[in-house]
Amino acid sequence: MNAEIVAIGTELLLGQNQDTNSSWLAGELALLGVDVFSFQAVGDNERRLETALKAACERSAFVVATGGLGPTVDDVTRKVAAKLAGKPLIFEEKLAKAIEERFARFRPGKPFPKVNLNQAFMPQGATVIPNENGTAPGFMVRVGKCHLACLPGVPSEMKPMFEATLKPFLKSLAPTGTIIKSRVYRTTGMDESALNERIRDLFESSANPTIGVLANAYGVDIRLTAKAASEKEADQLLEGLGKTLTLRLPNHIYGWDKDDLETIVGRLLTTRRLTLALAESCTGGLIAHRVTQVPGSSQYFIGGWTVYSNRFKSASLGVDPKTLESKGAVSAETAMEMAKKAREKTGADLAFSVTGIAGPSGGTPQKPVGLVFLGLADEQGVRVFERRFSGDRATFKIKVSQAALEFLRRSCLKLPLEDQDPNASPLGK
Amino acid sequence: MNAEIVAIGTELLLGQNQDTNSSWLAGELALLGVDVFSFQAVGDNERRLETALKAACERSAFVVATGGLGPTVDDVTRKVAAKLAGKPLIFEEKLAKAIEERFARFRPGKPFPKVNLNQAFMPQGATVIPNENGTAPGFMVRVGKCHLACLPGVPSEMKPMFEATLKPFLKSLAPTGTIIKSRVYRTTGMDESALNERIRDLFESSANPTIGVLANAYGVDIRLTAKAASEKEADQLLEGLGKTLTLRLPNHIYGWDKDDLETIVGRLLTTRRLTLALAESCTGGLIAHRVTQVPGSSQYFIGGWTVYSNRFKSASLGVDPKTLESKGAVSAETAMEMAKKAREKTGADLAFSVTGIAGPSGGTPQKPVGLVFLGLADEQGVRVFERRFSGDRATFKIKVSQAALEFLRRSCLKLPLEDQDPNASPLGK
Repeated sequence: MNAEIVAIGTELLLGQNQDTNSSWLAGELALLGVDVFSFQAVGDNERRLETALKAACERSAFVVATGGLGPTVDDVTRKVAAKLAGKPLIFEEKLAKAIEERFARFRPGKPFPKVNLNQAFMPQGATVIPNENGTAPGFMVRVGKCHLACLPGVPSEMKPMFEATLKPFLKSLAPTGTIIKSRVYRTTGMDESALNERIRDLFESSANPTIGVLANAYGVDIRLTAKAASEKEADQLLEGLGKTLTLRLPNHIYGWDKDDLETIVGRLLTTRRLTLALAESCTGGLIAHRVTQVPGSSQYFIGGWTVYSNRFKSASLGVDPKTLESKGAVSAETAMEMAKKAREKTGADLAFSVTGIAGPSGGTPQKPVGLVFLGLADEQGVRVFERRFSGDRATFKIKVSQAALEFLRRSCLKLPLEDQDPNASPLGK
Repeated sequence: MNAEIVAIGTELLLGQNQDTNSSWLAGELALLGVDVFSFQAVGDNERRLETALKAACERSAFVVATGGLGPTVDDVTRKVAAKLAGKPLIFEEKLAKAIEERFARFRPGKPFPKVNLNQAFMPQGATVIPNENGTAPGFMVRVGKCHLACLPGVPSEMKPMFEATLKPFLKSLAPTGTIIKSRVYRTTGMDESALNERIRDLFESSANPTIGVLANAYGVDIRLTAKAASEKEADQLLEGLGKTLTLRLPNHIYGWDKDDLETIVGRLLTTRRLTLALAESCTGGLIAHRVTQVPGSSQYFIGGWTVYSNRFKSASLGVDPKTLESKGAVSAETAMEMAKKAREKTGADLAFSVTGIAGPSGGTPQKPVGLVFLGLADEQGVRVFERRFSGDRATFKIKVSQAALEFLRRSCLKLPLEDQDPNASPLGK
């Protein structure tokens, strides 16, 4: 079954808004075994929209259009869809009532703008697609052999409407051919080329699932994409290759799909009943921010210092001014004292420190931009790690925060903190 | 002059990658007075790509395609473009040499993969578009009356190539008709409906520039979009309405376009030679993280505490345990002591504190999720503000951090910290 996606809105063609709907819909359709032929963006222009939708409906069995369902004259989707279906637009009393009621609920006391009633017009015989999160209902009509579904452009309205109505509809059609499902294995601490060395043979030998890698500041994501006759079969294929991957990268995979390291670390601290304190210099609070993004983090996170000035490093955290003077704020010794003092002063089970040079200025030949020392204090004492990270200030902060969380993850799991494998880069790059 | 954009890549149609190139190109073309007719995404499929590009070149005077220029058999753009132009593909020795040299520079010692030489083939007579940031050169060919430009899909390669080569080329063509230019005025501290009340008449009376508003967790952005015969004329139109806007919203506009509040506050602190300290509870380090995103922030940011546990609030920051016990950690009194102690302990000119309930749990009927107290300590003493913010944990943290930075901005500028206008919401919503 072929499908096309049409995003409607002049603001898209002016580059003012990014269309994220089409990409989302494409992923959902792939999972349903629907082959997306192409997608396109067109403006709020009746003639152009008609041309685009007509051609799409002639080529494909299913067309989903997003946008152009608002109440104003700009919003031409209803009119064009009715014309293509060869049906008149009919005023639906029930829809009108629902629109008025919704308005009264959210803007009590305000006069109802009559223009909103335009949204109660539907092509005769259309299947209405209810909208729980906004005023504009969607609908589906037949255009020749094609099913044309029209949804609003607001993602928070469009997505639940697709899920509730179009997904079951598409599933109910004749059994699909091949479905496509992906799973992402998330790694950190190894750069893309080191990772390629480890799994190169899998790239070459595995045709289904296929393997793709994507590097970013947080690490390298490995995407497996399986084609199968059913979602269950695709899951089995993903599981199979996933097991092999996990054996190849026993220390580096920290999660799947949308997992993030702060949530993983939070779970580990919770189940092990460990508490955490932080002493951050170059990350400027980013590690604490990430730790506290996790609901329930107050159970294990005691708190931390963001120590930007040297005086504050000494006065509040208790770093010896002599260390700062003789070794410098960015030094293994300072990182060690920061972690030690943070643990002592808070009574936390684990304390972590970072001090480095985020740039763009402040580097020297001996201590260049990108240099960072990371300290981990636990009941065994304090260990310090030296790393260099590339990238601009924001990227550097992300990479350091990710390395810090990865050290904490490995510490909780008693995994080696440094990689011995000569093919693996040390944590950080 | 009409244009179309074609993004090439099966990963786009599977929803695995979001196409951001088309939106960026659309904005650039609008600014050059080029009317983007539509844009579309197609897979790495020779026949489909040929159909799509052929139709686009027949309809439009300029077509820009992104992607499909890699070295593998999947990458079909060169072949299809040559076919549509009616020219053979020619091996360009000079390009081949540049590709080999680039490889040797970035992967010294590694054997050169011969497959990369596929990228040295060009349609005969094509104008080569050099790529300073990757191996795949782009090119431009004539397809009938249409100029077809093919660029790589990697944004960091594509954008500089467009800037360096296609932009001057498009400018050199016959003088364009109407250009479209936008400017965004960034506001915070007033919700969308309050802002609408203030500028409703401008919406109705201003046809050029038009006005659009977009609300997000950071505030409300007001986008002015001007149509004019030249960029200069568009700038004048934007300036004119911009002045009116600034008079209507004297306290709420903090910047333009890509300005962010942390950079604005950083500039104000720098020019006024003021230093800053922070004591954060519910934002968990986000304010410090934002402050330290700005290069040079070490000049004015002394440091801060992220005080998640009550014991740490007392032990390190010095909040009186009796205050915490009698008034609670989330109280005006605690916020006041936090700001006061942070200023005392660091010697900063300004100290800011936040304590609140980020949720999702931890709320009570008296102190619901979303409640926050913000404290500002300066040489005049300490002032505390009570606010409620809606949204999930991450949104709440952003809104609180934005309010904190806005209080700091207003404090530096001696603007009123609370809005008296009954039409304006207080800071925060």
